[in-house]
Amino acid sequence: MRCRTFWAMRQATRIIRLETGGRGFYDCTAALVDFVRGARMGEGLLTVFCRHTSASLLVQENADPSVLSDLQAAFDRLAPESAQYAHDTEGPDDMPAHIRAALTQTQLSIPVIGGALALGNWQGVYLVEHRRRLHRREIALHLIGE
Amino acid sequence: MRCRTFWAMRQATRIIRLETGGRGFYDCTAALVDFVRGARMGEGLLTVFCRHTSASLLVQENADPSVLSDLQAAFDRLAPESAQYAHDTEGPDDMPAHIRAALTQTQLSIPVIGGALALGNWQGVYLVEHRRRLHRREIALHLIGE
Amino acid sequence: MRCRTFWAMRQATRIIRLETGGRGFYDCTAALVDFVRGARMGEGLLTVFCRHTSASLLVQENADPSVLSDLQAAFDRLAPESAQYAHDTEGPDDMPAHIRAALTQTQLSIPVIGGALALGNWQGVYLVEHRRRLHRREIALHLIGE
Repeated sequence: MRCRTFWAMRQATRIIRLETGGRGFYDCTAALVDFVRGARMGEGLLTVFCRHTSASLLVQENADPSVLSDLQAAFDRLAPESAQYAHDTEGPDDMPAHIRAALTQTQLSIPVIGGALALGNWQGVYLVEHRRRLHRREIALHLIGE
Repeated sequence: MRCRTFWAMRQATRIIRLETGGRGFYDCTAALVDFVRGARMGEGLLTVFCRHTSASLLVQENADPSVLSDLQAAFDRLAPESAQYAHDTEGPDDMPAHIRAALTQTQLSIPVIGGALALGNWQGVYLVEHRRRLHRREIALHLIGE
Repeated sequence: MRCRTFWAMRQATRIIRLETGGRGFYDCTAALVDFVRGARMGEGLLTVFCRHTSASLLVQENADPSVLSDLQAAFDRLAPESAQYAHDTEGPDDMPAHIRAALTQTQLSIPVIGGALALGNWQGVYLVEHRRRLHRREIALHLIGE
């Protein structure tokens, strides 16, 4: 176990803005890596927070893109657009988007160890856009460590 | 990026208790805002932890209440009370409650930026009660920052 | 509210490795308790991060084992092996594993209060193996506090 006393514990925050072009998985990993590198922290905790309820976060495989298309098909089955919803003013993709966001993550925290995010080899961090139309999305980042 | 050295990093913790009156979404946002304000932290990380396995946490839309009723209907479809379960001693709503808790969140962390929770405009933080009867629930809060 | 200034905020990190023997729930709670005790922190935040996309984390009931078997059956219904998937090179259990991981958690954070994890009485922390064959899995731990 690595366990030291840090007299200079620090924090860094940032709001990332991105424009999504319809439903899909938008890889944010590089932006997170840049943020951690820029803060020059060796050990710490990165928190990623999605400021929306019809988009969400997911750690998933970054190797075979068919994993992401199969995941999209699974979301379509679990929260179909064809179901009856009371909340439908913005179209048939509105409420399924909220349900799919509820079933995935609004927030992720990833340890920083030895100056790098402790992601596995095949893990990418995705913003998942659940709405069909273009949206501007914001992700809040918080980093604490030394 | 905001990145400073803090010589007075602090923590605050609290256990919140609430009595739920059956299935539904109980808005906890005001209690979280109060906790962060009381600790007078400008930058930090708030963690919310639900100490139960048949209730859970969710960030969802706080504007149109039909989002929450549609979500409840989706939970009913995804984990129906009518299915056969081995764990049924406490009634037909017992095991569906565990499944719905597993599909949502036990824990949420929210960055504090500029003295405020970095929630989006339409985001509320809900304790989701999945059991039909009245329950006493506990939520552990942890705040670290400066 | 407990709120103090800590001049000796510390961090600890560790990678836990475990070998899973097929689908199921592997209780990690004791390893987490050991890690927190070893770091001798009174107040803090433990983060648990699963470095895989076909295994995940879950806080669930540690009392009646039928809760876990019913949960496994629910996963089988929500993401069945019998569905058609594009990503199937590693067998019919491959893509369902990714979907089940997406519907549960990759990361959990648990407050440490009074020297102990703030888990409820009936809560255990599980690594959920979603693949049928034996796998070596890694979990990254991060603890910050005093």
